Amino acid sequence: MKSDTYRMSMLYDFYGELLTEKQKELFDLYYNEDLSLSEIAEHAGITRQGVRDAIMRAEEVLRDTEDKLGLIRRYGSIEKQVAKIAEAASYIARVNATVRNYEIAARVDQILGVTRELSQSV
Amino acid sequence: MKSDTYRMSMLYDFYGELLTEKQKELFDLYYNEDLSLSEIAEHAGITRQGVRDAIMRAEEVLRDTEDKLGLIRRYGSIEKQVAKIAEAASYIARVNATVRNYEIAARVDQILGVTRELSQSV
Repeated sequence: MKSDTYRMSMLYDFYGELLTEKQKELFDLYYNEDLSLSEIAEHAGITRQGVRDAIMRAEEVLRDTEDKLGLIRRYGSIEKQVAKIAEAASYIARVNATVRNYEIAARVDQILGVTRELSQSV
Repeated sequence: MKSDTYRMSMLYDFYGELLTEKQKELFDLYYNEDLSLSEIAEHAGITRQGVRDAIMRAEEVLRDTEDKLGLIRRYGSIEKQVAKIAEAASYIARVNATVRNYEIAARVDQILGVTRELSQSV
């Protein structure tokens, strides 16, 4: 039954706090700790089917929320895009070390400053 | 009772789709169309108190969701930050029109490309 782990981690990162404590615990053991349904059942003292049902309900909550809000669609790839900007700006900084244009250097610093802010907040 | 309109619009933009159709309609008339509670009551054929209660419940859902998920805290200022990056990159492009360094120009284009992608998606 396991769904795509990367996608599930992303859904959990955005919307996990909408789940109950119990759902979060089981979801985390299954998708982040990579335990099997049977191992989780033993750990949690419930049936394998009970674990399975709880995780499927949790997945449904997360998927439904993204279907409604689409915030992963809007913001999910920002980290990668910010990294691209920072890389290009660092490259300009290296080239500019030869050109030695002060105004370019100042703007590159601005860009790198904002990308640092962004990667701390996201 | 009116809460900060800018904040409410932001909450609605992120989480509005978690509200019922009725809540969305009343919330929209109050915060986006700026009708009074009495005007909305007349329009919707319910009491002023009924309108007030529904809007307050909607606000509570939106606030609770941000308290749990914090996605406005994470992503709410990205548009402004992306605009700053684009502005700095455009400035480098202008300065570089004199310097005429091809590698700088190529990286500025990359940065501007990513900022365009970002401002379309957010």
